[in-house]
Amino acid sequence: MSARTVQVRTAAPYELRLGRGIVHESMRAAREYSAAAVLSDDHVWKLHGDKLQAGDARVVIVPQGERSKSFEQLERVLDALAEVRLDRRSCLVAFGGGVVGDLGGLASALFMRGIDVLQCPTTLLAQVDSSVGGKTAVNLRSGKNLAGAFHQPAGVWIDVDLLTTLDDQDYASGLGEVVKSAVLAGEADFARLEQHAEALLRRDPDLLLDVVEACVRQKAAVVESDEREAGPRRALNLGHTLGHAIERAAGYGRIPHGVAVAVGMLHACVRSAHEGVLQDRDLPARIRRLCARLGLPTGLDELRTRSGAALSEAELADAMQFDKKGALWILPVRLGEVRAVASKG
Amino acid sequence: MSARTVQVRTAAPYELRLGRGIVHESMRAAREYSAAAVLSDDHVWKLHGDKLQAGDARVVIVPQGERSKSFEQLERVLDALAEVRLDRRSCLVAFGGGVVGDLGGLASALFMRGIDVLQCPTTLLAQVDSSVGGKTAVNLRSGKNLAGAFHQPAGVWIDVDLLTTLDDQDYASGLGEVVKSAVLAGEADFARLEQHAEALLRRDPDLLLDVVEACVRQKAAVVESDEREAGPRRALNLGHTLGHAIERAAGYGRIPHGVAVAVGMLHACVRSAHEGVLQDRDLPARIRRLCARLGLPTGLDELRTRSGAALSEAELADAMQFDKKGALWILPVRLGEVRAVASKG
Repeated sequence: MSARTVQVRTAAPYELRLGRGIVHESMRAAREYSAAAVLSDDHVWKLHGDKLQAGDARVVIVPQGERSKSFEQLERVLDALAEVRLDRRSCLVAFGGGVVGDLGGLASALFMRGIDVLQCPTTLLAQVDSSVGGKTAVNLRSGKNLAGAFHQPAGVWIDVDLLTTLDDQDYASGLGEVVKSAVLAGEADFARLEQHAEALLRRDPDLLLDVVEACVRQKAAVVESDEREAGPRRALNLGHTLGHAIERAAGYGRIPHGVAVAVGMLHACVRSAHEGVLQDRDLPARIRRLCARLGLPTGLDELRTRSGAALSEAELADAMQFDKKGALWILPVRLGEVRAVASKG
Repeated sequence: MSARTVQVRTAAPYELRLGRGIVHESMRAAREYSAAAVLSDDHVWKLHGDKLQAGDARVVIVPQGERSKSFEQLERVLDALAEVRLDRRSCLVAFGGGVVGDLGGLASALFMRGIDVLQCPTTLLAQVDSSVGGKTAVNLRSGKNLAGAFHQPAGVWIDVDLLTTLDDQDYASGLGEVVKSAVLAGEADFARLEQHAEALLRRDPDLLLDVVEACVRQKAAVVESDEREAGPRRALNLGHTLGHAIERAAGYGRIPHGVAVAVGMLHACVRSAHEGVLQDRDLPARIRRLCARLGLPTGLDELRTRSGAALSEAELADAMQFDKKGALWILPVRLGEVRAVASKG
């Protein structure tokens, strides 16, 4: 089946390929290199490993979950790449969710000071967000993603058929970023989500293709304008100032990233109204209704009830101090427009 | 006392400042940032820590020696930067030899995906070579410098007064790279070393200033033309193909880097003559004589005798396979001219 293509015109441009049942095409590209290795996690590899058709490429497997975004695993991956004698003209295929993409991206950025990485995201969150844009990282004791690099992939293969096996919580996490993307993109994208919320929830593959494509086009446009997040790219952090604090305060891994972002975005709406930045007074209610239909929490209180995490104001304020993005709030003005506002403390 | 300045016109340009007793000027620059931390090793810090005038900046100390170029120390440094709440507008001052420069450079490249590093090299090797050009790395089990990044410093402060306490072996290591630099630069630089070999050996500070400046000017010009070593910069690897193999085969840390490079360069001369690349037939003898006057070994046999390392042909051939530079030989044609030749196996 034919795939769709989205160009990302960064300093070193690359293509995103979207389709159903296309993930093995990444290995075809990988075989053009002097050698290739594959990084995956135990969960993804068990479910989907055969679909990649990795042949005799060395496959490095890390345990599923955020704890694999560590220096320990990073060194393990790099040692494995050296063992199979990859060289500067080799590549690494990162086949998994955000953890594998971030870890594999950073390993590629560092191995011999930089080899190509081919991203094959297997979660909705990674497909719509983290596989595009070249942000890679591992976590430090003090916080998430504190050690990393900008390293654009040489290509991204987005196979929406892989999403059928995603558990509901991980799928919800992706939906949070999907809503965020639509808020940034504007009325047309947001209205499509409103029109097709139920079909999206039941993972209709054709709708998913359209929605994921819209998200990556939106993200590609922002990344092209500001590859290293000096300015405009900060818009993508809508919902992330509080979102990261929620993840941190609850204990990493307890609340899915995109769910925290959705709640953070709702909070940013309230803040935006309060500070007189919000122009479209209906927007908060529209976002809240869409979140409800997509099974996302509609605010901090609901998140507290659902998750059982205390998430006190004091905890959240403290957690926010650790965020490397600083206390910069991205506040919605209307669909398709946000404003960055420095925190008053 | 006034310092000399050399511009490095990389994508993000920076300045090298050279002088006597100038290292504290780096802290003046560091105080322009939102916050600053210092990285050093226990040996350098004990001898020279007071000269930096670090004030209340957090100082992170690693053990002296190559073993500190590890993921373990890298994570330790990054954790410390996070603990003292450095942010994206902060900087790290790397105050030490090549190990501290490489480790601090990489930590800066990674912390929050990149903060500025100010390099204050304290060894001759680091002053003439590794502090300039932005190569940073740690070692993997399989080999040296296999995990790293290109991360140009925001400034380099070269204080030749710090060289008086350097032990003879470390000083000799620097001299190896000094000779290499002069071979690449041409007749004038090489002749100066011949004229003043004894003064250089007794570390005459005014001569050292001239020699170090010549080396960094030479290196800056090459780095400017090819920041990420896609082509011309490979010339700097003169002596490194065999040099790295010598270090590896002897066991890292046993033979100083610059000493191995000097022997590698002499070997490259022989190879160059053998392959008909060498035009100046007197060059090998001139380099050998200069090495002898500077206390450097004049060939593999002398190195074997001096070091007690076996360094058999088989060991060296095996070690060369691990080099990320591949089997690319940089062969001297005459003073000021080299040619890159792919190995025949």
